[in-house]
Amino acid sequence: MANPNEHLKNFHRKVPEGDERERLVCRDCGFIAYENPRIIAGAVVEHEGKILLCRRAIYPQKGKWTIPAGFMEIGETPAEGAAREAYEEATAQIEIRDLLAIYSVTHISQVHMMFRARLKSPEFSPGIESLEVALFDWDEIPRDDLAFPSVHWVLNHYREAEGKSGFAPFTNPT
Amino acid sequence: MANPNEHLKNFHRKVPEGDERERLVCRDCGFIAYENPRIIAGAVVEHEGKILLCRRAIYPQKGKWTIPAGFMEIGETPAEGAAREAYEEATAQIEIRDLLAIYSVTHISQVHMMFRARLKSPEFSPGIESLEVALFDWDEIPRDDLAFPSVHWVLNHYREAEGKSGFAPFTNPT
Repeated sequence: MANPNEHLKNFHRKVPEGDERERLVCRDCGFIAYENPRIIAGAVVEHEGKILLCRRAIYPQKGKWTIPAGFMEIGETPAEGAAREAYEEATAQIEIRDLLAIYSVTHISQVHMMFRARLKSPEFSPGIESLEVALFDWDEIPRDDLAFPSVHWVLNHYREAEGKSGFAPFTNPT
Repeated sequence: MANPNEHLKNFHRKVPEGDERERLVCRDCGFIAYENPRIIAGAVVEHEGKILLCRRAIYPQKGKWTIPAGFMEIGETPAEGAAREAYEEATAQIEIRDLLAIYSVTHISQVHMMFRARLKSPEFSPGIESLEVALFDWDEIPRDDLAFPSVHWVLNHYREAEGKSGFAPFTNPT
């Protein structure tokens, strides 16, 4: 298997002039590869009381179920990112309702911004990153086969927020 | 003046294998410099009814007033980032209360997460990025000399949220 850090072979860690932290700096050209936390934008998408889940076709957690979510791209808002991911992973057109939760996953430097959303129409199919896409009744969610802790958290918080609006977003469970 | 993009001289834009978007790729070593939105973490810090502001010692907007805020670093939560920035810019120890607002500034790919906070003790002084730090009564805030639109927004939203708790964070004004 190829070394996943092969592309970093020219980089070393040093404190750039005027900075206070070590950064990844290219030995050849001086490029500074700043590492900042990245935003994962996602949505709990509901249709007639059921929740849309995608079974992952990619690593990590290939074969496990998740809500549509992924790295926010430049030029979009978090809500737009969540809607784009729902389209990419499930060819689903969604209407964002509100912000449900913000989770910090510090060991991998991610901030997850999770929205509540509805399907605009009951049409969906697996995108390139999904093996399968389906609507689940609450009691039929495959809890033993969810991809990430934050999927558990957000589904529980979705349930807790039912019937509420205008609330402070949920955060990491303690 | 040096070319600010000198460090990118070895990079060109191409769609990496398996990707769908153009990325900045180093011609020499293949390093992909992913550009994702970055989080600005900041806080409206109150002490005995006054608001803590810093006058910027750095560009952009050198000489203008702002709340303590800056790029979130890896390994921290947004709230920890806001507290660190208050310490770096104003040597202020703060207690984070709650999340006040989330702004998307898409043209510069930033997401601003702004908290409400209190000074733990009335001690502060200019950090290396500040010319001056001071507490302002609401009516004395230098409105014509604020550094960024989001500083206006967050101060107005702070005022609007007074006496409230458990609310959905404010977003960009329309």
